[in-house]
Parts: sequence; structure tokens; C-alpha cells
Amino acid sequence: MLTINYCTQCGELVELRVPSGDNLPRHVCASCEFIHYQNPKIVAGCIPEWGDRILLCKRAIEPRSGLWTIPAGFMENLETVEQAAARETDEEACAKVIIDGLYGVYNIPHISQVYMVFRGQLVDGKFSPGPESLETRLYSEEEIPWEELAFPVIVNSLKRYFNDRRRGVFEPHIDIIKPLRG
Amino acid sequence: MLTINYCTQCGELVELRVPSGDNLPRHVCASCEFIHYQNPKIVAGCIPEWGDRILLCKRAIEPRSGLWTIPAGFMENLETVEQAAARETDEEACAKVIIDGLYGVYNIPHISQVYMVFRGQLVDGKFSPGPESLETRLYSEEEIPWEELAFPVIVNSLKRYFNDRRRGVFEPHIDIIKPLRG
Repeated sequence: MLTINYCTQCGELVELRVPSGDNLPRHVCASCEFIHYQNPKIVAGCIPEWGDRILLCKRAIEPRSGLWTIPAGFMENLETVEQAAARETDEEACAKVIIDGLYGVYNIPHISQVYMVFRGQLVDGKFSPGPESLETRLYSEEEIPWEELAFPVIVNSLKRYFNDRRRGVFEPHIDIIKPLRG
Repeated sequence: MLTINYCTQCGELVELRVPSGDNLPRHVCASCEFIHYQNPKIVAGCIPEWGDRILLCKRAIEPRSGLWTIPAGFMENLETVEQAAARETDEEACAKVIIDGLYGVYNIPHISQVYMVFRGQLVDGKFSPGPESLETRLYSEEEIPWEELAFPVIVNSLKRYFNDRRRGVFEPHIDIIKPLRG
């Protein structure tokens, strides 16, 4: 949980306490009583397909700079999850994509994130690194750099993806990603 | 977007501007440069089944106090979407539920929410109104108070639910809920 010291509304000090009628501690303003709720964030991503290859991005930013990922990032207000996945693909890989159905939902409760991963079709096969990527590349299944993937959720979703592709059925799924240690 | 006047970290005034390397306006602290991101919230809900009836709650709180809904509410940090749906069912209807697979995902971009609706099985058929409900009741399809449902997303998901039940296949889906007017 992000530490909140001061009230966003009146600038006075906040305290961590359970508001009346609630059952979880929140950052509550000691002066104006404003409650600063914090909730999980959605990360929207896409597995962009071009023939039998998929597009990955080598991260230029922390965490996990230098490792590979699918295009994905925090969903913004006022957009749909599909729009967020397409926008991230454009921002990170300068690639236009048509978003297919929702493929995977991954709970990552220890960091209060929910990943929502779509399959997508590259529109024209064009791509190049956006400002948050060092490199963008199409990979066949045999070429996937499994040891250099940025996050466990990416390993999980790509393993499922290639398994499903071999079976010929892409099955929507919901899963949970646990901490690597502990 | 919530108005933010003061920095949560240092208490100084914030300004609305596009941070360097970003492309959307954010509330940025004019003093310490802390960026206050705001992102969509997940509402987790459940269609609790008991035989051929489902459990609805009459809302005791605004918005739409006095109208009927499925148990649903804002997902909290450190939980999974399934846990959130079960917790809300317990809080709003004092009912224990076993959560089935993810049934529906609803983008509601104009209010920056994503609804995630599961099917669930009531464990023992027991229920009663929690503090946020005036009444809880099992409804057969014929009895659903369609004109007294609290939100368009509830109408959409229950219509699909009963259609799918008649076909004998509950198909996961993703949809978008637009504003009633405009």
C-alpha cells in the first residue's frame, strides 16, 4: 500500500484507521475525514500474432530492464481493457493490433495487480521499439527466450498460449501468480 | 478523475500537467514531483445460485438505494478477484458461496470501472441482509424485478445469464456498458 501522509483534499495530516462502517484500515484525513481508498490496478496486455510468430519487447525500463515481455501496461481511466491493450502495443512496440477476445486473467494479489491478456492480430506486420523498449522482435515458439522473460505472469501466459495453439483451442482462463519466494 | 489539491507525500500543492515521458495529464507535486496516478477500479461480483434461483440484494446505500443488484463491490488490495466476489457476497448477503469460473467482464469506461462477474454456488442456502442491503431474496427467472435493477451492467449480465442457462452453456464474455444518455 502506498504511504499517504497528507490529505489530497485539504493538505492536513492523515491517519491510518478503520472508518466507521468499514472493516479495513484506510488513510483517513484527521481534519476533513476524506478517505483515501487504494485498490488493485489492472495491467492490460496483448500477445500480438503475425503468422506463427508473436511480438515481444525487450524492456528499456525498470523493473526487469533488458528482459522480454509482451506489450502490457497499466490501464488508464476512461478507456476499455481492449483499448488499453492496443494502446500499450502501440506505445511499446509501435505496432497496430486488432484485439481478439480476452484470453487470460491473472490475479497477482501480493502486488495488488490483475493482468488481463488478450490475443491480437498485427495489422500490417510493422513494429519498432517505443521509448520503453530496447528492441522488438517476432519470435516463433522455438525461439522464445524463456530464461529471459521479465515476469512470471508472462511465462505462464505464453506457456498456455503455445499449449493451446498446439491443441487448436484458445481457452480463456483465470489464474493466480504467487510470489517467487515465501 | 478525483480532484487532487495537495501532495500525499509532502503536503505541497499539486498541478495538473503531463509529466516528462508521459502523454496524459497527471496530478504532479510542484514541490517533490511525486506523480499521483489514477486508474480504473475493479468491481467484483457474483451471481449466487441456489437450485434454479439466484440471490439478489436490495441496496440500502446510494447510488440506487432501494433497487436490486447482485452482490458486488470494489476489489481490495491483496486479494484475488474471486476472493473479492465471495467477500462481497458475504458482506452484502451474509451468504457463503463457492465461486465458479469468470463469467462476464464489463468495461464501463465513462466511470473508469471494470466489472468482473462470476457465477457462484451458495454453500448452504442461508442468507440475510448485510449492513449495505435492505433485503436479500432468491429469485427465479420469472420473478426477476427487471425494472428495479440498480445498474445497466446488472441488467446485461442477468439477461445473458438466463439466456445462457436456457441454452445450457455459460459462455465467458467481455462487453462494454455505455452511458444511458449522450
